[in-house]
Amino acid sequence: MDKITSLIHLLPVAAPPPSLKDNTGDLDRLQRAIRSLPGFAACPLVIPYRRQAVLAANFRRCGFQGVALLNELALTVNGKSREKGAGATSACWQLVDFLSTIPARLPAMALDLGTTHLAAVLLDLLNGQELACATRVNSQTAYGADILSRIHFAAVKDGEEDTGGGLARLHGAVIADINTLAGQLAKTAGLPPGAIRAMSVAGNTAMSHLFLGLNPYHLCREPYIPVVNAPAPVAAVELGLDIHPAALVHVLPGVGSYFGGDLLAGIVACDLDLAGEPAMLIDVGTNAEVVVGCRDWLMACAGAAGPALEGGVAEMGMRAGIGVIERVSIDPVSAELAFTVITEDLASDLTSNSRSCSGSASATDVRDNRNHRPKARGICGSGIIDLMAELFLAGMIDVRGKFRPKRMGARLVARPDGPAFVVARPEEAVGGKAVEVSQLDLDALMRSKAAMYAVLSTLMEQLGLPFSALKQIYVAGAFGRRIDPRQAVVLGMIPDLPLATYRSVGNSSLAGAGRYLLSAAARERVRAAAKKTTYLELNVNHEFMLRFSGARFIPHTDRRLFPSVPRPDESENRKVND
Amino acid sequence: MDKITSLIHLLPVAAPPPSLKDNTGDLDRLQRAIRSLPGFAACPLVIPYRRQAVLAANFRRCGFQGVALLNELALTVNGKSREKGAGATSACWQLVDFLSTIPARLPAMALDLGTTHLAAVLLDLLNGQELACATRVNSQTAYGADILSRIHFAAVKDGEEDTGGGLARLHGAVIADINTLAGQLAKTAGLPPGAIRAMSVAGNTAMSHLFLGLNPYHLCREPYIPVVNAPAPVAAVELGLDIHPAALVHVLPGVGSYFGGDLLAGIVACDLDLAGEPAMLIDVGTNAEVVVGCRDWLMACAGAAGPALEGGVAEMGMRAGIGVIERVSIDPVSAELAFTVITEDLASDLTSNSRSCSGSASATDVRDNRNHRPKARGICGSGIIDLMAELFLAGMIDVRGKFRPKRMGARLVARPDGPAFVVARPEEAVGGKAVEVSQLDLDALMRSKAAMYAVLSTLMEQLGLPFSALKQIYVAGAFGRRIDPRQAVVLGMIPDLPLATYRSVGNSSLAGAGRYLLSAAARERVRAAAKKTTYLELNVNHEFMLRFSGARFIPHTDRRLFPSVPRPDESENRKVND
Repeated sequence: MDKITSLIHLLPVAAPPPSLKDNTGDLDRLQRAIRSLPGFAACPLVIPYRRQAVLAANFRRCGFQGVALLNELALTVNGKSREKGAGATSACWQLVDFLSTIPARLPAMALDLGTTHLAAVLLDLLNGQELACATRVNSQTAYGADILSRIHFAAVKDGEEDTGGGLARLHGAVIADINTLAGQLAKTAGLPPGAIRAMSVAGNTAMSHLFLGLNPYHLCREPYIPVVNAPAPVAAVELGLDIHPAALVHVLPGVGSYFGGDLLAGIVACDLDLAGEPAMLIDVGTNAEVVVGCRDWLMACAGAAGPALEGGVAEMGMRAGIGVIERVSIDPVSAELAFTVITEDLASDLTSNSRSCSGSASATDVRDNRNHRPKARGICGSGIIDLMAELFLAGMIDVRGKFRPKRMGARLVARPDGPAFVVARPEEAVGGKAVEVSQLDLDALMRSKAAMYAVLSTLMEQLGLPFSALKQIYVAGAFGRRIDPRQAVVLGMIPDLPLATYRSVGNSSLAGAGRYLLSAAARERVRAAAKKTTYLELNVNHEFMLRFSGARFIPHTDRRLFPSVPRPDESENRKVND
Repeated sequence: MDKITSLIHLLPVAAPPPSLKDNTGDLDRLQRAIRSLPGFAACPLVIPYRRQAVLAANFRRCGFQGVALLNELALTVNGKSREKGAGATSACWQLVDFLSTIPARLPAMALDLGTTHLAAVLLDLLNGQELACATRVNSQTAYGADILSRIHFAAVKDGEEDTGGGLARLHGAVIADINTLAGQLAKTAGLPPGAIRAMSVAGNTAMSHLFLGLNPYHLCREPYIPVVNAPAPVAAVELGLDIHPAALVHVLPGVGSYFGGDLLAGIVACDLDLAGEPAMLIDVGTNAEVVVGCRDWLMACAGAAGPALEGGVAEMGMRAGIGVIERVSIDPVSAELAFTVITEDLASDLTSNSRSCSGSASATDVRDNRNHRPKARGICGSGIIDLMAELFLAGMIDVRGKFRPKRMGARLVARPDGPAFVVARPEEAVGGKAVEVSQLDLDALMRSKAAMYAVLSTLMEQLGLPFSALKQIYVAGAFGRRIDPRQAVVLGMIPDLPLATYRSVGNSSLAGAGRYLLSAAARERVRAAAKKTTYLELNVNHEFMLRFSGARFIPHTDRRLFPSVPRPDESENRKVND
């Protein structure tokens, strides 16, 4: 971590008290005192209208001596200055409060604004310490599970001008969620929510638009243009956030409609922008985003594979949580199946390096029988990936991902929507309800894995680099945390590289948002990465569609791409031992 | 008038339309296009949060070509730069709207925020033309007639924090008044109020505080410190003003608690700050303010004489208006009295050079008898000054301003509160009610005139200059417009200088507020004048009290100061001829 250079400056100030000889106004006096300090002489100082009265009152109450609280309000200036061609920023401070002394803590909230989940940490800007963390479901899901349906809902009008009724409702829903999170964080830290003095927000472009009350209408329409890529900081009070009203909310910039501040945060959290050799970051949340790069260049793509990956990897079956099957193994000889369920809480998937977080999943009916193996209540994406790889290696599905009924025995059952495979039998499952994976589920995963590989290979093709050029592949999010890279390689979802190449990095979006709050260098890196990143639009990329087709086999039509994946026993006469 | 360099910049912009190769966000695209224009490359651009959605929508609707509307948002920078020691300002623009073409008109409102009256003009920022003017009474008078009583009322709490209940009510009252004025101006100009894109406000420090919702508590308490002398511009929407929500409201800076933006506006309107030789500006409204200076220095004082002058000159009898006696003459030989009443409307007193304005005074019962001399319904300050000077010259009052009963005849009547002089007999008055001036009225005027002369002479004493050093004395406001300088000299209210020295300048506060909207040079001059002005606090000035005593005689205890004023016939045996 860089030196702590937070978005808030606490500046000890001692002004001469007013006298008949010096009738300067309170606020002018305060500004004059600040400008007399080294480094502030020529610095623009802005006092927001709503802060004037309280600022003057606090300054007086402190006897004109104490600590001025300044928010960094970087103004982008397209200077010929400093950086080679890139836009520079000019320091500008917003003077918002006056305290009697340096406070014991200076809490700020970093938020990962996910399509499905919100995750937040409360950091102390004085020392970088984590004070609390919390997660919750994004209530916008009530208006649409995925980004596209929310963009459509945002366009629903109900009489309002500029902001449609749908937009206002989506905006209101996420603001209410964030207020709940802020309340939880503050409570954990033993503070009032009003003590939170700053916020950073890393989200995909659509979520950032909805958060700011901006209509995302054009995001999903060619040529896919956001209202704004680099929004200016906004006072919390203007957004209706129940933290300190003068807290500035910094929405991390994005690069394009399908490449938001969450991925830029991830780039900085993984130090991808500092890497000496090319590395890759894969972030599969509700959406899928990939970036390849190093300190000299960055190229990214995202979104095109979204719907398939969303439905197939992160959404299939159910979300990771207590009692959900995350690992499956099938003995290739005996065909015996074993599974393990998740026994820790969801929140640890959503906040990185946060072991103390408590989420909302209920553990009651799963752990009621502590002496026995925990019962299953469903299967999540990583469980299905495990299952499918094991089924393939055991010769129970073919290269197209289709069940081979003669190899499957009694675990294969007929359902109205087609055949399904029983992963957890009724006696192993919560409520006696078997956990099954259908052919339709596997078909969805096939599309997802094909899309993922097509995204990765199209991107490398554009760069003219082989996968072997990548020394490190960071896999972010719940996907990175839960998935077994070996199984994903078997399926042909990710390239066949040494497993040490893959590294799970947790919630890199949240980690990056936290660094944004704490470090000026990180903020500059986010801005520089936004400018440096070339965005590859896959929605209109024909190469991608060709690669998608080739990837719809296990592991691939071109087997030379996956030398480590064995050819399973393809004979038809072995059966599952049950 | 300087070259028109208004507070709003209309900038023709043609941005390349979005494409798959150029996925810059709408607002980033607009900013990039502006930054590519000469002079804007390194200029900070701010987009207020609430303008983002509408700005992007308008930019799109115009096909990414048209006219960007930018508000000047000067940031004060205490640089060692440019000006010798003084604070410089750094240009900063607020990007608030996008239009398809340059509009036909660009209306902005200049406001004289008086304690008793508000006066406004609507100017076209494109050419400086006056589109409309209007005046009205300040509704805050319902909460207190003078500044002190309003400051006390502002401190009345009713449960709110920071802003007391009284403060909120005073703020709300004046905002409602201004909204009414804005509606009138817009209607006259044939525009919606939302077409008004900027506002400048010149008021005394207390009125400026109440307008901004700032508590003026410390203004009237030693050492008399304002919350702010130089407030930052505020968006109209934040103040609750019903003009364009993004219109910036510029409150002209003040120098001290008793020296506000109204007087700085006056200084610039009279070009006092450019004068080669010392000149003086006297502004007597509800309060009295005086400034002496030239291009090299400015010294001002105000307020101390306020209550006396308010009660005595501007408030005594009644305010100037149709049917009010403004001129009185008494033949020193025959003692015959003649008077003239005001036949034009009040508004022309309040807006300078504005002959088209219509005020609210009713002319019905005054002009019902057009073939006769108009009847009187009262007497205003200038009428009483005329009367008193004439009474003195006719030997009917003594040097202390006391009636000399033996010289007055039947016009002297006895009232419960003491003797009074009949100016208009019942048959000459509206409703048959005689217009009288009592000894108490004259006593009040004596205090007022003594205070005025004491203020002027204390100020000159501080400067070490004789009155004869003043080549010009500008007399602003209704006082300047109505008063006969010769009569004021006779009373010893103003110095005995050639009458050509005195020049009535109308509402210089309003004129200066208008220039502030139209000219960057005027804005810089206002800021420079604020820094250059030395403020003399009379509330604690013992010299002033001594001078006040000496001035409580007509014309003065030291007759050498008024060589042009004759000694009236002091014999006791002449009577008024009636």
